[in-house]
Amino acid sequence: MNIILLSGGSGKRLWPLSNDIRSKQFIQLFKDHEGNYESMVQRVYRQITTVDKDATLTVATSKTQVSSIRNQLGNAADICIEPCRRDTFPAIALAATYLLYEKKAGRDECVVVCPVDPYVDDTYYEAVAKLEDLVKEGKSNLTLMGIEPTYPSEKYGYIIPKSKDLVSEVSEFKEKPDTETAKGYLSRGALWNAGVFAFKLGYLVDKAHELIDFTDYRDLYEKYDTLNKISFDYAVVEKEESIRVMRYAGEWKDVGTWNMMAEVMADDIKGNAVTDECCENVQIVNELDIPIIALGCKDMVIAASGDGILVTDKERSGYMKPLVEKVTDNMEARYAEKSWGTYRVIDAQPGSMTIKAFVKKGNHMSYHSHTLRDEVWTILAGRGYVIVDGIRQDVKEGDTVTMAAGCMHTIVAETDMSLLEVQLGVELSTEDKRYGDFEF
Amino acid sequence: MNIILLSGGSGKRLWPLSNDIRSKQFIQLFKDHEGNYESMVQRVYRQITTVDKDATLTVATSKTQVSSIRNQLGNAADICIEPCRRDTFPAIALAATYLLYEKKAGRDECVVVCPVDPYVDDTYYEAVAKLEDLVKEGKSNLTLMGIEPTYPSEKYGYIIPKSKDLVSEVSEFKEKPDTETAKGYLSRGALWNAGVFAFKLGYLVDKAHELIDFTDYRDLYEKYDTLNKISFDYAVVEKEESIRVMRYAGEWKDVGTWNMMAEVMADDIKGNAVTDECCENVQIVNELDIPIIALGCKDMVIAASGDGILVTDKERSGYMKPLVEKVTDNMEARYAEKSWGTYRVIDAQPGSMTIKAFVKKGNHMSYHSHTLRDEVWTILAGRGYVIVDGIRQDVKEGDTVTMAAGCMHTIVAETDMSLLEVQLGVELSTEDKRYGDFEF
Repeated sequence: MNIILLSGGSGKRLWPLSNDIRSKQFIQLFKDHEGNYESMVQRVYRQITTVDKDATLTVATSKTQVSSIRNQLGNAADICIEPCRRDTFPAIALAATYLLYEKKAGRDECVVVCPVDPYVDDTYYEAVAKLEDLVKEGKSNLTLMGIEPTYPSEKYGYIIPKSKDLVSEVSEFKEKPDTETAKGYLSRGALWNAGVFAFKLGYLVDKAHELIDFTDYRDLYEKYDTLNKISFDYAVVEKEESIRVMRYAGEWKDVGTWNMMAEVMADDIKGNAVTDECCENVQIVNELDIPIIALGCKDMVIAASGDGILVTDKERSGYMKPLVEKVTDNMEARYAEKSWGTYRVIDAQPGSMTIKAFVKKGNHMSYHSHTLRDEVWTILAGRGYVIVDGIRQDVKEGDTVTMAAGCMHTIVAETDMSLLEVQLGVELSTEDKRYGDFEF
Repeated sequence: MNIILLSGGSGKRLWPLSNDIRSKQFIQLFKDHEGNYESMVQRVYRQITTVDKDATLTVATSKTQVSSIRNQLGNAADICIEPCRRDTFPAIALAATYLLYEKKAGRDECVVVCPVDPYVDDTYYEAVAKLEDLVKEGKSNLTLMGIEPTYPSEKYGYIIPKSKDLVSEVSEFKEKPDTETAKGYLSRGALWNAGVFAFKLGYLVDKAHELIDFTDYRDLYEKYDTLNKISFDYAVVEKEESIRVMRYAGEWKDVGTWNMMAEVMADDIKGNAVTDECCENVQIVNELDIPIIALGCKDMVIAASGDGILVTDKERSGYMKPLVEKVTDNMEARYAEKSWGTYRVIDAQPGSMTIKAFVKKGNHMSYHSHTLRDEVWTILAGRGYVIVDGIRQDVKEGDTVTMAAGCMHTIVAETDMSLLEVQLGVELSTEDKRYGDFEF
């Protein structure tokens, strides 16, 4: 089974845990069977490989997510990097051509496209495996999965099937309706469009060539920024005549708000927090190292990270976007996963910013310099070495390294390391970075 | 007018803003007439000197509060330091003997003892000034202020006056009652005992000599730790026959819980926080430099500092003590005012702790060393010099100073300075400190 996992863009709907550089699919609030915390991406990967241990997984995503995916999945999944965001049709076309031209997958192989963010149980991926069987039957060009609605939602598009059979031809598609209209759809046996599409690889690559002028994967990649933004639904699905849908009635939750996340997170409290006996229906996630105390809170979510603190009534949690935009205006994300580990802003004042970084054993930062700032490292724990303007120096806890603006530098971790980085300058920005060559 | 201001002990009733070393009277949530934030101590000082610009103020308090008082009042008030906590009678006796033996106040001078923590308007201190007139009349040894109750509270002791006149002899004192009993007291014209006592200095010093065996202030100070803990009410007030009370009916609020503080704080939001239009009756205090977003919160207080985050229903805010004890067990306070400025813990992990310190221009830390830890300073802003094992070195932003365990050190700020201090060691404690001599 070839799965293309669409790992969507950054979002702030789970702020302060999600931000411009940490998408919600990397927040670890679920648990695997051994009780270890896992993220949406890790959960999906585990579920897919539980159903089909030979499944090949290709994550279609932007460059900003590569470090997080590598940190969380290692090399278990291929990553197809979108040079920029161009909606789902270009993303799926790019991933499909990647499979055909780069991974040499066969034109007759089945590909299933899945979004990364619904919270589902294992039966969902058993259904995904059945889609593969339906594709192999060859009775339709496209096969979709439709979710049995549990209420007349205004949030989803609807698929109206021709029959109420488990697998049916599609009569028509409907945009997100109002509640009254949705009730009408439900009486006709309508299903939510979950964004799960299955097809033969050749079908989709042909469709891509039909709609886009390109030769192969590399060519498509090069001209990706010239493509129009268009959804897969609009470009392909709604125009296809030969199309079937399979019903799915198992657990399926769209974890798009804290209210929804609160329903499915593994523990009511994650992190350093306590509640009194008068708290009811409260979930707390605390990534800070200071404690949270909640007293007499009802139907609320409290979430804290280096980016900020959210205290929200569950019903209101879907309405925070304007406030998040207000408070994060001009504020760079304070936490990020990097290829070499993680960093977190722990202090900022005019003229300086202090970052705490973890560098994993065996990893190193890129060899780089800054134009507008000096930096000072203080090693908190671990051992390794730094290269500063080509000169190697061993470092251990308590050592400091000073790097003036313009000076090339990197650190190589021989054990897990933690360090403070003080950035000093009038203009401090993650943009101020130049890369150099160094043979590690 | 001589005022002895009793600046009570540390408490956690306004956690996380109050902690073991920052008492609630130093939290700046009120505002003066120019709109500048001020603390309880600063407000009381301003109010007293508004009513009597020549008032002499002596703050009776413990050593731990001296830095905060100096930071907030400068040298405007005298400080009478209790070597240890021994309840209010020893504290008042010490302050009275300090006035007589050290400050050479006259035995006939009037002294008024006031607690620091009620929130009152200026008419309160006008009433305090009237107490002085009553003391000068000499009709009684002790003159108290009684607060007109606004409800039959269980939280206060009661004074039953002989008449309902503005000034009356006292019939009897009552301990904190239950609500039904309190209702009975109210029908007899009872007043809340606000802990305001006025007397001639000689009266109180004689009383102290009668109850304690000592010669003068220095002798009392030396043997202070041998004294029994006993309240002024119990030791003096309830045994005194010649005693009058004056009614006070103006604004008087006991700011002992967040619920009460929320009623009187100057702004509904202090610090980086936003609320949505569905929030009602919500107050937020945020001392962190990350934003707080509150959505759909009703009748709540949210307070955040380097010590932790509180999210509480107002009614429940009086019940947080056991939870605060639970989360702060083994946790040292993460913010403190020092004689030289402030410090705040910004990161802690096994083996290291990082502190951000502000040192005010012209100030310096004590010359000291640590036995069990190395330290590294990184100057973030400002200029000054360090003394390390007797050697002076100028420092400015970006400079680092490394101090091995055992090494004596201090920093002297020639401008306002901020710096990071990384502490490295297996056992990190504020107890690990030895002082040395240095001529600054």
